[in-house]
Amino acid sequence: MDFTLTVLGTASAKPTAARYQSAQVLTVHGRSFLIDCGEGVQTRLQTSRISLMKIESVFISHIHGDHVFGIFGLLSTMGMLSRTQPLNIYAPVSFGPILRFFMSYYGDGIAFDVIHNPLNMKEPTEIYSTKSLSVSAFPLNHKIEAFGFLFREKEPQFNVKKWKIDEYSLTLTEIGTVKRGEDVRRVLPDGTEQVIPVSELGYKPFNPRSYAYCSDTAPFPEEASWVHGVDILYHEATYLSSLEDQAKARFHSTTLQAAACARQAEVGKLVIGHYSSRNKDPKQYEAECRSIFSESYAADDGDVFDVPLVKLD
Amino acid sequence: MDFTLTVLGTASAKPTAARYQSAQVLTVHGRSFLIDCGEGVQTRLQTSRISLMKIESVFISHIHGDHVFGIFGLLSTMGMLSRTQPLNIYAPVSFGPILRFFMSYYGDGIAFDVIHNPLNMKEPTEIYSTKSLSVSAFPLNHKIEAFGFLFREKEPQFNVKKWKIDEYSLTLTEIGTVKRGEDVRRVLPDGTEQVIPVSELGYKPFNPRSYAYCSDTAPFPEEASWVHGVDILYHEATYLSSLEDQAKARFHSTTLQAAACARQAEVGKLVIGHYSSRNKDPKQYEAECRSIFSESYAADDGDVFDVPLVKLD
Repeated sequence: MDFTLTVLGTASAKPTAARYQSAQVLTVHGRSFLIDCGEGVQTRLQTSRISLMKIESVFISHIHGDHVFGIFGLLSTMGMLSRTQPLNIYAPVSFGPILRFFMSYYGDGIAFDVIHNPLNMKEPTEIYSTKSLSVSAFPLNHKIEAFGFLFREKEPQFNVKKWKIDEYSLTLTEIGTVKRGEDVRRVLPDGTEQVIPVSELGYKPFNPRSYAYCSDTAPFPEEASWVHGVDILYHEATYLSSLEDQAKARFHSTTLQAAACARQAEVGKLVIGHYSSRNKDPKQYEAECRSIFSESYAADDGDVFDVPLVKLD
Repeated sequence: MDFTLTVLGTASAKPTAARYQSAQVLTVHGRSFLIDCGEGVQTRLQTSRISLMKIESVFISHIHGDHVFGIFGLLSTMGMLSRTQPLNIYAPVSFGPILRFFMSYYGDGIAFDVIHNPLNMKEPTEIYSTKSLSVSAFPLNHKIEAFGFLFREKEPQFNVKKWKIDEYSLTLTEIGTVKRGEDVRRVLPDGTEQVIPVSELGYKPFNPRSYAYCSDTAPFPEEASWVHGVDILYHEATYLSSLEDQAKARFHSTTLQAAACARQAEVGKLVIGHYSSRNKDPKQYEAECRSIFSESYAADDGDVFDVPLVKLD
């Protein structure tokens, strides 16, 4: 029941010898989701020992080249490795022509469906849902249309306290009710209703874990509320705090702005990246964030952040 | 007066954690020429400490993704670094739509002219010429239109043997004649012609150096004659000799085929690359080539091959 973030690239627009452009993989219950697709992502996947064939879906925040130029090589290699499983790409509307270009010139080797799910919401909206995971997207504040993503485990089924089954003579139907996290209601012989609280009969095995990705973006009012309470928030921190004017002009964030969002959103941990190539030392970035929000981490390429399952029994 | 090859990527279609896709820089007299443009090339340029702003022209053999997907990030970064010098791209006709796609979606940040010089020749044809360097292109034998390149220093000016100036009372015009490598001709008072051989009056300071790039290609009859006598021949050797059938089906070459070409062409040195991702050990490739042509070298990413200037004085 893993919930693990692997940061593949932490450079901003210009890659360096040590940092690739933005890309990450979030693995949830064995399923891998690629978030952004900077140039060289397939090499980084290899270095991090993540099979690109295991990538179920791709989430692209915006079509600036440093977030998207790796998609061509990625799709080509998936084709060469004879992928058959469809690939869903959740990306802004503006990604459509880019995908069409690729498919028209390089699509011959692509035997699997590549499905573009266009993003154009004005507020948080669910875009992906399975039994165990929900992903929603929300608009960011960048120079071109851009979207953040929030990955959240679904509420787990309740576990039934086994000794209560006999104690209350629970029927199969009532066991199902408890698993759904609902109170059990019975009509007694006298016609009155008996309510047995679910907390008496069962317990949530763990709290759902969550991860939010906010890049690229300048600060905006709703941001903290839209990512409230996530276990890990990844937020771009392109600039040190002394370059706030430059951040504003380019619709980016500074360290302190990323940290302020994390604090206001009461997240578990802040992970930052997308460093300007001018600054070679992410520790400076980290220190500035920690002056506001102590659980701040400046990622390097290849870093892994795990959100362990905390059992509640 | 350098003439230096830096091999940036030696993978074939699928990059590995250790090898990027095809790209090389040839530096001639301080000018840098990029040959092919696999994904991640700009990162490799940084690792090899070659400024991408110094790249004068780009030569693209064919538009398979592993030779071209790095062009988008490269042009974007050149734009971000405010390049003003025009960039010539010598590439097949089929590259045109790829460049047009890029310029229409990402061209806003590109303030310099990007000039596509389409290749469509049926035999070796000069495509670039300056005072000191000539580049010609010639068709290869690949699945789609593809071209090889031959870079050759122009014949240098002759050096005048200074002591001959007085000995023969050479005029300025005659000095110019010697520098052009021509015999000096005089009309004597009796009307006869005196011819003073240029070898008496001057000498070629060095033999022009040359480099040929052949990738991707299956063997073809004219190949060796078209690259005859080059100091370094780079030839793809995607497959070991046991996989000749596969090489033929995919319009690639084996080690022995690359080496046979080098031997027949009497080149100075053979450098091979574009290894299939199945084989992790280029030494095996090298050994097979050396069984036919001893001066064979299996390149790794980052390898540098210099052709020193050999003075003839």
